[in-house]
Amino acid sequence: MNTLPHNILTFVHSLLSQHLKTGDCVADCTAGNGNDTLFLAETVGKTGKIWAFDIQEVALHNTRQRLQDAGLSEPVELILDGHQNIDQHIQQPLDAVMFNLGYLPQGDKHCTTQTDSTLIAIKKSLKLLRKNGILSVVLYSGHAAGFAECAAIEQFSGSLKQQDYDILRYQFANRPKTAPYALIFRKMTDEIIFQAA
Amino acid sequence: MNTLPHNILTFVHSLLSQHLKTGDCVADCTAGNGNDTLFLAETVGKTGKIWAFDIQEVALHNTRQRLQDAGLSEPVELILDGHQNIDQHIQQPLDAVMFNLGYLPQGDKHCTTQTDSTLIAIKKSLKLLRKNGILSVVLYSGHAAGFAECAAIEQFSGSLKQQDYDILRYQFANRPKTAPYALIFRKMTDEIIFQAA
Repeated sequence: MNTLPHNILTFVHSLLSQHLKTGDCVADCTAGNGNDTLFLAETVGKTGKIWAFDIQEVALHNTRQRLQDAGLSEPVELILDGHQNIDQHIQQPLDAVMFNLGYLPQGDKHCTTQTDSTLIAIKKSLKLLRKNGILSVVLYSGHAAGFAECAAIEQFSGSLKQQDYDILRYQFANRPKTAPYALIFRKMTDEIIFQAA
Repeated sequence: MNTLPHNILTFVHSLLSQHLKTGDCVADCTAGNGNDTLFLAETVGKTGKIWAFDIQEVALHNTRQRLQDAGLSEPVELILDGHQNIDQHIQQPLDAVMFNLGYLPQGDKHCTTQTDSTLIAIKKSLKLLRKNGILSVVLYSGHAAGFAECAAIEQFSGSLKQQDYDILRYQFANRPKTAPYALIFRKMTDEIIFQAA
């Protein structure tokens, strides 16, 4: 466990690994090259359940390959759809949801997450979380679309009540303002869309 | 272990407790009512060593009392002096240094930490840290002196090189801008003033 790592993605994994356990149900809203999906599969194991979303076929292909290499395909459902439709695919409470915004590494840099659909996906994901569930977002303000996306997510986060969510911002104080940073939401309320099965 | 707590002071304790071990040498640069000193004494134990600084006799009195009640007076040296003189009292590498800025809770609110002396103390403490040592600062921008102090510490932190220090800022995203927050410095370099005895 390392909660003081050099890299914000490692940091988020460290935090989540403390809060998740075998058998948990989780979603990766930005499958990308499968980095977070694989981490989630390793963490919740074969008795858990992972939904991984991406709108690019190449992303799901890469993710599928990584899971196969690790022998962890079984608990993962790969979904070729926008994360703003998460509630069409998941009808049960979640223990964690991950977002890693921006564009696909080594992919088309013009195909980035979009403010409107990202916000919808975050709002729906927060509703799907069970009490004490965690939602993590890694944000990148260094590209044009990312800057607006960060501002919108910050505004939305700031509007949530303290009694409903603890939201911690983790960022490096001696890196450029455009360095990636993380927001971690912990749900404090019982309110969920779907009851446990 | 809880790295997603509701309170920033609890959060800092959680982080430090992961990085400290029995026998470590640490400093509390703002003893106050002894909250951090007691935490450090519990964490490094009787084989460790803790230096606790305060300029108010009442703070050291309260700290002494808490340590006595816990049976942990032995490893703690209470020092009635400004933390800017830390290097006059400690001549060995430290594993951690804690600062909790502002005024003494339930004390004289006009007696707050001062920007100039705080900055000197932080700079000297960073030099005293051994490689991988941690310095934590809890900052309060909600009072007049605190606002200037925060700005100065942020400016100093931002000037430190990434290869020398990882500096993470932890703050709640849905609380007032004046809510307390933490900066955690991890030293990446071998440079220290004093060699281990």
